[in-house]
Amino acid sequence: MRVVISIGGSVLAPDLDPDRIEAHATVIESLSREGCDLGAVVGGGGVAREYIGAARDLGANEVQLDQIGIDVTRINARMLIAALGSGVDPTPPHDYEDAGDAIRRGDVAVMGGVTPGQTTDAVAAALAEYVNADLLVYATSANGVYDADPKTDPDATKFEELSASELVDVIAPMSRDAGASAPVDLLAAKLIERSGMRSIVLDGTDPARIERAVLRGDHDGTDIVP
Amino acid sequence: MRVVISIGGSVLAPDLDPDRIEAHATVIESLSREGCDLGAVVGGGGVAREYIGAARDLGANEVQLDQIGIDVTRINARMLIAALGSGVDPTPPHDYEDAGDAIRRGDVAVMGGVTPGQTTDAVAAALAEYVNADLLVYATSANGVYDADPKTDPDATKFEELSASELVDVIAPMSRDAGASAPVDLLAAKLIERSGMRSIVLDGTDPARIERAVLRGDHDGTDIVP
Amino acid sequence: MRVVISIGGSVLAPDLDPDRIEAHATVIESLSREGCDLGAVVGGGGVAREYIGAARDLGANEVQLDQIGIDVTRINARMLIAALGSGVDPTPPHDYEDAGDAIRRGDVAVMGGVTPGQTTDAVAAALAEYVNADLLVYATSANGVYDADPKTDPDATKFEELSASELVDVIAPMSRDAGASAPVDLLAAKLIERSGMRSIVLDGTDPARIERAVLRGDHDGTDIVP
Amino acid sequence: MRVVISIGGSVLAPDLDPDRIEAHATVIESLSREGCDLGAVVGGGGVAREYIGAARDLGANEVQLDQIGIDVTRINARMLIAALGSGVDPTPPHDYEDAGDAIRRGDVAVMGGVTPGQTTDAVAAALAEYVNADLLVYATSANGVYDADPKTDPDATKFEELSASELVDVIAPMSRDAGASAPVDLLAAKLIERSGMRSIVLDGTDPARIERAVLRGDHDGTDIVP
Amino acid sequence: MRVVISIGGSVLAPDLDPDRIEAHATVIESLSREGCDLGAVVGGGGVAREYIGAARDLGANEVQLDQIGIDVTRINARMLIAALGSGVDPTPPHDYEDAGDAIRRGDVAVMGGVTPGQTTDAVAAALAEYVNADLLVYATSANGVYDADPKTDPDATKFEELSASELVDVIAPMSRDAGASAPVDLLAAKLIERSGMRSIVLDGTDPARIERAVLRGDHDGTDIVP
Amino acid sequence: MRVVISIGGSVLAPDLDPDRIEAHATVIESLSREGCDLGAVVGGGGVAREYIGAARDLGANEVQLDQIGIDVTRINARMLIAALGSGVDPTPPHDYEDAGDAIRRGDVAVMGGVTPGQTTDAVAAALAEYVNADLLVYATSANGVYDADPKTDPDATKFEELSASELVDVIAPMSRDAGASAPVDLLAAKLIERSGMRSIVLDGTDPARIERAVLRGDHDGTDIVP
Repeated sequence: MRVVISIGGSVLAPDLDPDRIEAHATVIESLSREGCDLGAVVGGGGVAREYIGAARDLGANEVQLDQIGIDVTRINARMLIAALGSGVDPTPPHDYEDAGDAIRRGDVAVMGGVTPGQTTDAVAAALAEYVNADLLVYATSANGVYDADPKTDPDATKFEELSASELVDVIAPMSRDAGASAPVDLLAAKLIERSGMRSIVLDGTDPARIERAVLRGDHDGTDIVP
Repeated sequence: MRVVISIGGSVLAPDLDPDRIEAHATVIESLSREGCDLGAVVGGGGVAREYIGAARDLGANEVQLDQIGIDVTRINARMLIAALGSGVDPTPPHDYEDAGDAIRRGDVAVMGGVTPGQTTDAVAAALAEYVNADLLVYATSANGVYDADPKTDPDATKFEELSASELVDVIAPMSRDAGASAPVDLLAAKLIERSGMRSIVLDGTDPARIERAVLRGDHDGTDIVP
Repeated sequence: MRVVISIGGSVLAPDLDPDRIEAHATVIESLSREGCDLGAVVGGGGVAREYIGAARDLGANEVQLDQIGIDVTRINARMLIAALGSGVDPTPPHDYEDAGDAIRRGDVAVMGGVTPGQTTDAVAAALAEYVNADLLVYATSANGVYDADPKTDPDATKFEELSASELVDVIAPMSRDAGASAPVDLLAAKLIERSGMRSIVLDGTDPARIERAVLRGDHDGTDIVP
Repeated sequence: MRVVISIGGSVLAPDLDPDRIEAHATVIESLSREGCDLGAVVGGGGVAREYIGAARDLGANEVQLDQIGIDVTRINARMLIAALGSGVDPTPPHDYEDAGDAIRRGDVAVMGGVTPGQTTDAVAAALAEYVNADLLVYATSANGVYDADPKTDPDATKFEELSASELVDVIAPMSRDAGASAPVDLLAAKLIERSGMRSIVLDGTDPARIERAVLRGDHDGTDIVP
Repeated sequence: MRVVISIGGSVLAPDLDPDRIEAHATVIESLSREGCDLGAVVGGGGVAREYIGAARDLGANEVQLDQIGIDVTRINARMLIAALGSGVDPTPPHDYEDAGDAIRRGDVAVMGGVTPGQTTDAVAAALAEYVNADLLVYATSANGVYDADPKTDPDATKFEELSASELVDVIAPMSRDAGASAPVDLLAAKLIERSGMRSIVLDGTDPARIERAVLRGDHDGTDIVP
Repeated sequence: MRVVISIGGSVLAPDLDPDRIEAHATVIESLSREGCDLGAVVGGGGVAREYIGAARDLGANEVQLDQIGIDVTRINARMLIAALGSGVDPTPPHDYEDAGDAIRRGDVAVMGGVTPGQTTDAVAAALAEYVNADLLVYATSANGVYDADPKTDPDATKFEELSASELVDVIAPMSRDAGASAPVDLLAAKLIERSGMRSIVLDGTDPARIERAVLRGDHDGTDIVP
């Protein structure tokens, strides 16, 4: 099975904790031993947020901020690579072709961001499209897709299953504001829709959940079905 | 004044007509003589559509199709560069930094697409953000932003002016379908919103309209105001 | 057996027909299954001709025209790659070392042009030299090497076999004119001569002929012997 | 006057404080207005130290740690670039030729690290050599070169002036230990020696000191004379 | 006036003599002061011949030999760049676009070879085409184009003037043998023909002859006229 | 066993002798057959010295000289690659990641220099660190590490074994002068120290000694132990 895992920055590196990164590496190694071909795309997390805040104060424009964020995601990718040790492309690929090439050769590929104006959520969806993945997992700090923001709306209800098309409909209004309550970026949702990939949105703060979801389909997040 | 012009594929190259490309080059040269710093981002047009159709028949996935489309946009960029002759970066830049560098040195920069999953509309918005453009012009085959698809809805009304935030609200439902009636891509609209750039959406099939809009603010498309 | 196949633009893509590209892919897959290590170099065809014509009208110089032609050959390479699906380097290599590396790893490498002033015929010969190919096949729209242009001279006689040195002597005067009646580029012929590679020039419009020629030496084109 | 300034990580970014970075940008802009051609090389600081510590826990080897450190220095370079705004190469150059090219074109070049096994101190010396700088300034957290470590030895005496050759002699034993009390890396000192560049080692925590030292030769650090 | 000078390896570096290289740099500087925009393409000379001979003994194939030769031409380019000091692109460009870009910015561009299977003669012609040069000078060890090899045929007569088309006719049979008596490579001659560039073939062993030829049209080599 | 061999320029190429290069290739092939994963880093030798001398006369600065030296080391790497024929990365890697990638895939990687200011000794140590080599061999023109320069001091005594820390102490004063009597560069010694790699310094003029040292630990050079 070919799987792409998007590990949000808030999941992998809210702060720099080697144990948390190690735990994610352990899951990837375990999935790899079970025969999965794997790509991972990691976000920026706390360090990215700090750098971006400081750069904004210094007058950087939005594209410059995105570039700084991308650089941090690539360092985070190096951290996960260091934790994986072997069986992994030792350099974070900068485009889908290099990542796909690594996966074809039997390595795990760990990417960060690719270009300004595009989140790592969208990168993960495009990588999954490119390698014709069987499954795309979003390991986020939310535990699935809700019909409203569960942080502010006590009546928010989680979807167990959504079609990709419904996902776009649900995400679109949520991604309207800067304070983005959407668990997955809208562009990512549209890429999922156009490719018809099977996807899961789940709470990745305990990485063991990713493993169970991939290997046994056992999770309490949201299934996105083609 | 620093201006980025997005010339849609359907405007620059619905088919391969040197006269049409020459006419766009003439406008860019004229704007340059008037003192504008210029970036242009061109789409794929008819050739891209044909290649993508054939590649889809051959089993290419969506990312591969995007890559083929990007390659065609870069050839179209070379065509416009050839027509411009001098005062232009002779190679289509592949990222915002190279394009920005060319513009800083006084050259016109002509880009095509950048990465799969991102339209040339979005590239134009990101380039405009990156170079802190004063104006971003979308030269499309539509003549502005309507509240509905004017091709199918006789009551569709064109907006004379929209805030960037309203643009996103109007575009979002239109960009819902594959048959995309939106004159500007949703991601582009969001980049416009986050940067607060002044933008114009107009009918670019007669390139002289672009010149009048930039130099005199005279156009009958839609103004997007911060 | 290590084989490099040059598929002329007029053979692969006189126009954009997925079935024709698919037929070439089928032959390559079949040769690969038979144990051949394979490189393919594809030409520009009809789209290249149209772009080059339009760019010439726009004032592009010869090197710029070559660059546009190279870009089209690389898109054609992507088309063939899409048709091949697996077992192929997913990106058209831009130099011989990348192509050779892909072939060494067991992938088919599909290249387009490399640099202005050099045809894809010459690229195929150089790639064959670089990978020490056992056989170089020119799949052209002619069905072999003649002592005169068969289109204009009714007495033109096809050679069944030529030494590489004789090939250069025959080709040299033919490649004298722009209307180039030579089935193979002169530089390519000289590279064949210096390396002493076994080569075949045959009619590639029916790709099955390529397969028979490679596997059984059965063809009615011209054999070039060291 | 052509000047290269090495801004240590502990000086520019002990933590991420936009005001401190802004203050350094202000000095660079002021020197630029005074007619200096400028290159800057920045270190990693607190974020680098944290990332390297975590990566070491994850089992990264020394070269991987260096690569992570280099990535952080390049983000720091982007921060300083953002603060400079205009008149600066917008991308941190990765080698001396790109940096030298930017300086020749009248831009400030801001680099981070270049390759594993080489500190940013050494990068600054090599950049100064490459651009034939008139002056190389080390803005460090020490306020000059001492004959012993002033933090541990109360009798440590600061040199007002040293020859480059003496600098190497003084630095060599200090750079012996991991806890490196040397204000400048030994390889950097050797590059200074071989090129015979004039250099200053001074306390850069208040960037105004850099400006006074460059423009008026007024500083209380150590002068390295050829 | 825009001029490209091809300095053959046997002219620039039959052996490694700094005075000879300096003399060529002096001429280039002088032409630059006279207002010429300049590109230079240098050959491999004695060192290339030695390396290629040794590599052939080691079993390198022809493309590998070409690559080694290209590497040596690029070092020779660095030597000429060192001698020029300022006003020159400090890195030998690897393609025509980078070289053209340097020339447009007012620098001298010094290239070596570009790709296997293509001589530096052909590179010079392609660079001249690309930058729309007014004049292309071949500084060779011959003193013009003869109707036979003057080294072996006492009746060989030098042409004072040839059309580009006649040049191809004269060169073609000469370039037939490995012991190549042609003063200019056949592919180069064909590029000259297709572009209709004015060219001069002259004895470059005394570089002052290049200067007189460019500035005053005074030389006793062969003029190639469109 | 993973082994990195540093073959000094004075060992591989004091002059250009194919037999000497072949002899080194034979040893590498033999070690490879015995199951070693291998990286080699080669120096510049006589050609580098000649080019650097001439460039210095032409006014090149130290960084430019280093760049020319690096180019020559990479040609030397191509020579060794040509001699190795198969089972070797056909292109000399320019950084540790590419080299490490080739070794992971089962190829021998042959590098030259990487960046100005860093010797190939240091490159070999960094490559060994990066690939977590079990053994690093310095094949030099000295036959081990002495407590003084054996060329000038008749009482110089060779060490049979040194700790990495002692190596740095011994090397530091020797590397003080330009006439560098140190068998290994100081930066290399420090990299060995920080990584705790097992290393051997031996006389490599007869490459068979390298093979015996690697396979049987049998040599009369100096062992550096962690």
